[in-house]
Amino acid sequence: MSIDKYFKQRKSIRSFSNREVTPELLDRILEAASKAPTMGNMQLYSVVETRRGESREQLEKLHFSQPASTGAPVLLTVCADFYMFSKWCKVENADPGYDNFLSFLSALTDAVILSQQIVTIAEMEGLGTCYLGTVLYNADKISELLKLPELVVPVCTIALGYPDGEGVATERLPIDAWRHKEVYYDFNDLEVAELYKVKDEYPANREFVKENGKETLAQLFTDIRYPRGLNRSVSDMLLKLLKAKKYL
Amino acid sequence: MSIDKYFKQRKSIRSFSNREVTPELLDRILEAASKAPTMGNMQLYSVVETRRGESREQLEKLHFSQPASTGAPVLLTVCADFYMFSKWCKVENADPGYDNFLSFLSALTDAVILSQQIVTIAEMEGLGTCYLGTVLYNADKISELLKLPELVVPVCTIALGYPDGEGVATERLPIDAWRHKEVYYDFNDLEVAELYKVKDEYPANREFVKENGKETLAQLFTDIRYPRGLNRSVSDMLLKLLKAKKYL
Repeated sequence: MSIDKYFKQRKSIRSFSNREVTPELLDRILEAASKAPTMGNMQLYSVVETRRGESREQLEKLHFSQPASTGAPVLLTVCADFYMFSKWCKVENADPGYDNFLSFLSALTDAVILSQQIVTIAEMEGLGTCYLGTVLYNADKISELLKLPELVVPVCTIALGYPDGEGVATERLPIDAWRHKEVYYDFNDLEVAELYKVKDEYPANREFVKENGKETLAQLFTDIRYPRGLNRSVSDMLLKLLKAKKYL
Repeated sequence: MSIDKYFKQRKSIRSFSNREVTPELLDRILEAASKAPTMGNMQLYSVVETRRGESREQLEKLHFSQPASTGAPVLLTVCADFYMFSKWCKVENADPGYDNFLSFLSALTDAVILSQQIVTIAEMEGLGTCYLGTVLYNADKISELLKLPELVVPVCTIALGYPDGEGVATERLPIDAWRHKEVYYDFNDLEVAELYKVKDEYPANREFVKENGKETLAQLFTDIRYPRGLNRSVSDMLLKLLKAKKYL
């Protein structure tokens, strides 16, 4: 197995060729991915596949029409789903008690594990992939568009297709920045600065900071990409959505 | 790449040999896994590694001393972590606004993606793995034991070691049970029963139902494995923990 090729040198793909992903290939990927670990073997997820067509354009808009969303032949919306399992319980004369927060977290975990398995297998099949983090920002509207019932919440979106180009390499922190032994080690400011040097000094990041007229890379995150006000309003929407979905 | 071997025929391992996992091997796995996709390249996770020793026994107890927790040479507690990133923001003269629910879900997603990447790579390196879903049931006490600061919540635990034996095969639903096209399809009762036949009729499941004196497999989940009352009390604890961690 080429761990170097498929993991260490792995890159997200945001630009796709026109080549279609055949239904047979996608089925094969999904089937293999479904052998991923899942809580108590309950398979608490569902996947909505969107190819080109009318509702696709609406979905792209809900992902702010970012190029990966408009360019990929397939968008997979992966959902935390206790609806289907609960329905089965009722059919089988059992009383499902999964309208609560723990059940949401269990289903969310299952859905993300499945998502990452799809990503890895798809890449081994020659496809390129990219997560669209925007799924959380419009989770309520995406839920409506895809007609998701209660206990079904969209949590990951994967853009999938044949790559056009090689993708862009990105930097990562040294493992000592996030791997702790026995207990969590609370780094001091100097140590934090040292560990994040790899990000601060990465050429593409420096360029990005300059272009946006910021002093530091961190300000790019806090002021532009993931600002407090937006985080708060999306959080309010998500909590409302979880209530409507009966998870809260 | 052997998609069959590493994905379609994948099995969780709950029984481990005495052979140690060398620090070098674990570092190599973690480093390769850190190239996994992460929200805005923020790497919103941390991993606490626990090998044998005093605090290890306490951790095992918090996983109800299940055999995978006591037998594995390494336990990895993977956490949703906006603490380190926020600390870096402060060091870099930026104002982090990540004490909210969206940020928790983003970090949780990052942590689960990393976890699954660790699992896949470890298995390709010849190790066996198993998720301990119990991490959520004692998340508050595990957080205390591992001295996790605010904005750090344990979300996945991976038991890791060399397999003793082959693991047990488990059944999965047909992909049509969870893959939808364009919109969510709401199966009727007959269709649900048909799709779940593979679980109902799986020999090990039938045996398990009989042993526990239940009528159906679903009752095993609702009455014994994941009952409503326990789900509710754990949910209350988790919401309290998220408040204490400043995510709510």
